Amino acid sequence: MIERYSRKQLTDIWSEQNKYQIWLDVEVAAAEAMEKLGQIPKGVASVVRKKAKINVKRIHQIESKVKHDVIAFLTSITEKAGIKARYLHQGMTSSDVLDTSLNIQLVQSGKILLSDIDQILKVLKKQAKKYKYTPCMGRSHGIHAEPITFGLKLASFYEEFKRNRKRLVDAIDEISTCAISGAVGTFANINPNVEKHVAKKLGLKVEPISTQVIPRDRHAFYFSILGIIAGSVERVAVEIRHLQRTEVYEVQEFFSKDQKGSSAMPHKKNPILSENLTGLARMVRSAVIPALENIALWHERDISHSSVERNIGPDANITLDFALARLSNILDKMIVYPKKMIENLNITKGLIFSQEVMLELTKSGLSREQSYKMVQNYAKKCFAENLNLFDVISDDKFIMAKISSKRLRAIFNYSSHFKNVDLIFRRVFK
Amino acid sequence: MIERYSRKQLTDIWSEQNKYQIWLDVEVAAAEAMEKLGQIPKGVASVVRKKAKINVKRIHQIESKVKHDVIAFLTSITEKAGIKARYLHQGMTSSDVLDTSLNIQLVQSGKILLSDIDQILKVLKKQAKKYKYTPCMGRSHGIHAEPITFGLKLASFYEEFKRNRKRLVDAIDEISTCAISGAVGTFANINPNVEKHVAKKLGLKVEPISTQVIPRDRHAFYFSILGIIAGSVERVAVEIRHLQRTEVYEVQEFFSKDQKGSSAMPHKKNPILSENLTGLARMVRSAVIPALENIALWHERDISHSSVERNIGPDANITLDFALARLSNILDKMIVYPKKMIENLNITKGLIFSQEVMLELTKSGLSREQSYKMVQNYAKKCFAENLNLFDVISDDKFIMAKISSKRLRAIFNYSSHFKNVDLIFRRVFK
Amino acid sequence: MIERYSRKQLTDIWSEQNKYQIWLDVEVAAAEAMEKLGQIPKGVASVVRKKAKINVKRIHQIESKVKHDVIAFLTSITEKAGIKARYLHQGMTSSDVLDTSLNIQLVQSGKILLSDIDQILKVLKKQAKKYKYTPCMGRSHGIHAEPITFGLKLASFYEEFKRNRKRLVDAIDEISTCAISGAVGTFANINPNVEKHVAKKLGLKVEPISTQVIPRDRHAFYFSILGIIAGSVERVAVEIRHLQRTEVYEVQEFFSKDQKGSSAMPHKKNPILSENLTGLARMVRSAVIPALENIALWHERDISHSSVERNIGPDANITLDFALARLSNILDKMIVYPKKMIENLNITKGLIFSQEVMLELTKSGLSREQSYKMVQNYAKKCFAENLNLFDVISDDKFIMAKISSKRLRAIFNYSSHFKNVDLIFRRVFK
Amino acid sequence: MIERYSRKQLTDIWSEQNKYQIWLDVEVAAAEAMEKLGQIPKGVASVVRKKAKINVKRIHQIESKVKHDVIAFLTSITEKAGIKARYLHQGMTSSDVLDTSLNIQLVQSGKILLSDIDQILKVLKKQAKKYKYTPCMGRSHGIHAEPITFGLKLASFYEEFKRNRKRLVDAIDEISTCAISGAVGTFANINPNVEKHVAKKLGLKVEPISTQVIPRDRHAFYFSILGIIAGSVERVAVEIRHLQRTEVYEVQEFFSKDQKGSSAMPHKKNPILSENLTGLARMVRSAVIPALENIALWHERDISHSSVERNIGPDANITLDFALARLSNILDKMIVYPKKMIENLNITKGLIFSQEVMLELTKSGLSREQSYKMVQNYAKKCFAENLNLFDVISDDKFIMAKISSKRLRAIFNYSSHFKNVDLIFRRVFK
Repeated sequence: MIERYSRKQLTDIWSEQNKYQIWLDVEVAAAEAMEKLGQIPKGVASVVRKKAKINVKRIHQIESKVKHDVIAFLTSITEKAGIKARYLHQGMTSSDVLDTSLNIQLVQSGKILLSDIDQILKVLKKQAKKYKYTPCMGRSHGIHAEPITFGLKLASFYEEFKRNRKRLVDAIDEISTCAISGAVGTFANINPNVEKHVAKKLGLKVEPISTQVIPRDRHAFYFSILGIIAGSVERVAVEIRHLQRTEVYEVQEFFSKDQKGSSAMPHKKNPILSENLTGLARMVRSAVIPALENIALWHERDISHSSVERNIGPDANITLDFALARLSNILDKMIVYPKKMIENLNITKGLIFSQEVMLELTKSGLSREQSYKMVQNYAKKCFAENLNLFDVISDDKFIMAKISSKRLRAIFNYSSHFKNVDLIFRRVFK
Repeated sequence: MIERYSRKQLTDIWSEQNKYQIWLDVEVAAAEAMEKLGQIPKGVASVVRKKAKINVKRIHQIESKVKHDVIAFLTSITEKAGIKARYLHQGMTSSDVLDTSLNIQLVQSGKILLSDIDQILKVLKKQAKKYKYTPCMGRSHGIHAEPITFGLKLASFYEEFKRNRKRLVDAIDEISTCAISGAVGTFANINPNVEKHVAKKLGLKVEPISTQVIPRDRHAFYFSILGIIAGSVERVAVEIRHLQRTEVYEVQEFFSKDQKGSSAMPHKKNPILSENLTGLARMVRSAVIPALENIALWHERDISHSSVERNIGPDANITLDFALARLSNILDKMIVYPKKMIENLNITKGLIFSQEVMLELTKSGLSREQSYKMVQNYAKKCFAENLNLFDVISDDKFIMAKISSKRLRAIFNYSSHFKNVDLIFRRVFK
Repeated sequence: MIERYSRKQLTDIWSEQNKYQIWLDVEVAAAEAMEKLGQIPKGVASVVRKKAKINVKRIHQIESKVKHDVIAFLTSITEKAGIKARYLHQGMTSSDVLDTSLNIQLVQSGKILLSDIDQILKVLKKQAKKYKYTPCMGRSHGIHAEPITFGLKLASFYEEFKRNRKRLVDAIDEISTCAISGAVGTFANINPNVEKHVAKKLGLKVEPISTQVIPRDRHAFYFSILGIIAGSVERVAVEIRHLQRTEVYEVQEFFSKDQKGSSAMPHKKNPILSENLTGLARMVRSAVIPALENIALWHERDISHSSVERNIGPDANITLDFALARLSNILDKMIVYPKKMIENLNITKGLIFSQEVMLELTKSGLSREQSYKMVQNYAKKCFAENLNLFDVISDDKFIMAKISSKRLRAIFNYSSHFKNVDLIFRRVFK
Repeated sequence: MIERYSRKQLTDIWSEQNKYQIWLDVEVAAAEAMEKLGQIPKGVASVVRKKAKINVKRIHQIESKVKHDVIAFLTSITEKAGIKARYLHQGMTSSDVLDTSLNIQLVQSGKILLSDIDQILKVLKKQAKKYKYTPCMGRSHGIHAEPITFGLKLASFYEEFKRNRKRLVDAIDEISTCAISGAVGTFANINPNVEKHVAKKLGLKVEPISTQVIPRDRHAFYFSILGIIAGSVERVAVEIRHLQRTEVYEVQEFFSKDQKGSSAMPHKKNPILSENLTGLARMVRSAVIPALENIALWHERDISHSSVERNIGPDANITLDFALARLSNILDKMIVYPKKMIENLNITKGLIFSQEVMLELTKSGLSREQSYKMVQNYAKKCFAENLNLFDVISDDKFIMAKISSKRLRAIFNYSSHFKNVDLIFRRVFK
């Protein structure tokens, strides 16, 4: 969690203040239920809710002595809320509070990440539609393949983030559980209705079976999804970095007026935001393995997961939120050079149409093998001698006897590649 | 993929034979569609389906020359099926075949993993019910906490595998797509209806937008889920290893008659199957990061993912299948020692009931702090002097003035801890 | 970087204050060299050294405008040190400063980690010698094997940390380089003697060839070593957690007077420090993959590594320092129960001596197979009927005809297992 | 371990045949020592060496019954070598054989990897010298920075592989240990001189203290180094992929005559070997975390590491060997286009010399800030209006009053950037 890569919304969620506030919400909700059940005197919940104020400093002070965070928290609450507060937490165990609260922090974070993705989807949709028919080189292996449109590239990202959205919704759902089940999950000293009440009150589902802790496969799922989303961020970032290369220069990150590109080289405009996202993706991804390692806790629980979650809880969420926000911004403000896209399309002087020539020859009755060899030879010749494939083919009488010159011209026109763009857009932006 | 850790069902799916067979299925289905569309002569699909036989050796032979697997495959098919086969693959690109086929292999694998999980669920349910009320120590931090039942432990695993089942269903769904969209996903030379037909024929959905390849976030999701399931396997395996420790010895892996435990120590019965699962879990987990790194392919695709998938495709699936099958077997045949569980419950001479004593004191009007201190002091004394907490408490007149001796006896009886076992079981095995 | 898991020494190293101070040291040392070479006026270095004060807040203020940290830093220095400061950084590129400085921070951190390891070695040596001949069960697979001494366990950890010490020395050495080679590492605008001078001045070696940046395989090595050391921390931590289990209870973490073990269960003493180390080990380990992913920067450099290093630089070092310090402390203050170790040695009623009986039988002329079977059968019988192996063997006339009863008594005495303890100690603590 | 990515030398090392052969070597060497010590009859070692033949099939047959690999192996040896073989393995434990043997396999593999690196070094040196002064664009952030030479690029890789060579030598050294210390490492039933003899005989060092197993931090170090080397392979591979991009096209992988680039696009020449290496690097890297997780074995050992090592032992070594060999081959045969390098150098029409203009202005008395702004403005203008920086600067009277036109011409000449190439080469190829 680096300030430089953090946004307030998220750091607030992971602040001590918010954590203890959620603890208080859980304890008060539990007290309400216990009151209803007649297990503690009436009025505890309302008194505590009214009087208790989170004092992070005081809690830390007490904790440094008792070395137990929940006890420190409860002591601090009692100091503020008075004697009635001693009825809080009865029959509960620390994890009842900690785990339910952690889930709430994850749900709070997840919802913001969801709105980040929505923002990305909005920007991608806008840009995809804007550049729907802007011709652009399609590349495989880094090598020119066949024409696409820049809009298609963006539509592909859009669809990927739609999938990420669904996955994140599932991950939030997985983590939306509440466990108030006591020391080893048997409800030995706590009525299961307390759990039910707290869950309902806090917008969670009841954890069907807990063992003191909420099982960590749920958290592993959540962090795995963050890792996948980070992978998608990286994919888009790498694309922009490629497109901004000096030799390609089809797209450029927005560059603010006062910004300096390089302390040494005044002319440089580097895709630093996208490079930064590439690194941040590595960081979010690095949370996945520890989260998976956390699943196999010993017996009814050990506490090895805790120090992991104190790190990756804030770090992975804050970093991904920052990355998603930065990505929307990049995509929203990027400068696109359609003219350069066209220039690049022409770099190989028609070689990118070779497949269609080959297919046309096959249709005319040549074997696939023959056609392939014939076209590959011409392709090599063009490349070696810097010729235009159209001209070379036009001069080949054997071929021209099989393909009409009208058809040949049609082949060497990339707009014919875009006949299904609309169909694809309809699939994506339905 | 180690033979020792492989089962035939899965290795068959990942055999060259099956891979090429699926390629053939894809090509033939595509040819059917092209015939319907009048793009290739009638009869291609049926001739190829009838005459083509997969000859792995021959394909490899050709590939060693042309260095392109799909071309080698097509050439080999043409050798068998004759001239009509040259109409196969028209307008398609290798990835159309490779990616759709890889997804089919993943779906085939996923379905077997699903049945493995079903088997685990079946065994866990049987065992959980059998041991529903078998008292067993609940442990947190490896330290005795409060009593649970052995059935609860198993029910907790059951619920976790239910979650894993759902996740795997989602992962199979994610990966059930078909892309036949040509060199850069534009359908420039192939009718989108071909894709539609192939998808339907092979039980897949149409990939809404592909870029030559099916986007790798789908695969990342699939392998992430395998990693999570492996984490759950590890959790159960670690539990069994703990319970089989000499000092604990509550559970033991089945030990076949001729099996030797140790070349040096004839008395030893080691939980080697569960230890093995712990290692295998590490292996399955290790596939997750490469799968995430595969997402950010360059532009419309690069081929860096391929060597990764040639490894983790078979390895992670085969290893997890083996691990799941081994786990069912362990759980099914494990030897449980309820008598030892009771002995262990009594090791701390009643200390495990200390919480309830404390709660009872709190109810009687003492502050939580006072009660805690009082009981903790007695706990320390019992531990230090090897006394029974019940006896010590009974001798304390102050306490006995607050807790009736009948109530005290009730507290020191673990069956009172099991009053909600049935409720939990109903939640889990509804 | 969680405050709770941080020590001041390390957070100071990674503070903004220290970072900029190192930048200043690098710039001033470079200026000295340039002065000597007559490239800039005399007195720049001394003026800047005298007048420049790091003002973190001001630097951030400027950076928020110019969006370039080195330029912001230089501007701030110029504000303080006056016009002569404009001669700083001539011909240098940001990375000259950033990379050399990062290496210095890593070296500073590494040296503290080294002293942490020295402290662990010191404690381990003390404790190993103290418990050199304290009998203790040796366990494989969690199952009792043959006797060892508790000192041997600690000696094994000692040797492992000796290896870690050597690795860390190598890692510090790897990272002790300085690069002042300009925009693409060609010294186009900077004299190579500047680099030489700065390296010497700051206790570094010259990076033989840099590309603007210091190659990231060096950093990957450093963080990999941190990952290995974390693995060793985990190994010791897991051992302590095992030994503190209620059923084993041979060792216990120190428990401060005011500390509370569990909010619900007053009797519990949990190995929470060691559990915490297990989790922290996962975190340090999680830095390894991002560090490895950082190696493959694009061309002469891209900046994707930067956000990774801003995280793992402080996080992995601070966390490991904290973990090592905590580990020394645990090992130093742990409570050892030699009596319980003896009790545990006797749990299996002599089964742990079965190997020697078997070997003795083999020596007497029986085949290994026969001996194994015979002893294994008795072992099974003893276990099943809770008998003592010594008694059972003593009753077998066939065996007693082959082993004298004096020899048998010698076999069932674990002190005979310790004859080579001194030899091993001499190997380790030479 | 995919056949397609394997070389015989390495698969032979990891064959069952070789494994059992090494086991035999260890057992026989141990028997020799025991004979010398008078613990077993003379002649055992020589008889076994003469008569024993490894019969993998038979061993597997026995193992399927006894479920213990070392016992199966010993039984099979006894079948061949007769009754004297029963003296083998006395006082030893399986791990004595397994662990020492695994280390030998790792050493054997490591030595081949070392020769692979030597081959890469040889090729890189040759190519670096060949292209020592071939001008080439230096790029940071993917953006043109300042000129370098292609030889410098290669020299940088050379230096990195020199570091990798040293690391690998250290890793082999770490793993070159032998442990023959019995069931829990106490030499209870085996004379330490046996270990000493076996170590010497097999070219290993004595493991100072083992616990039944050789500590896994050694293996973790070995596999971490493989991960780092894989990172370097990836760095070079990514470079080649970038340089082969259609828009850059400065370097091309060798393309064999019969090879087909794309089933759909006959003109394409894709850097598939380098892309493949990128994926293989991910695979080797994925072995690092499991190796680190293996360190924390329980007590004197558990066997969870075994299934991991059965996988990563062969897989990581075989894959890295293949990758290194492929990399040498790519580097050896790559086609370099110096003419295209020059063309690319000129793409930005002199902007890459902007830094020097700025420095020259600073030397003339302008502040760094002023110079930067002035040059940046011209850089923007040139880029926007497609002008040549030299021309634009030449027209600025203010600047030309500060820089002589001779000096300006010198600045706009990249050969001036190469004055220190020889110095760097002397550092690298000393």
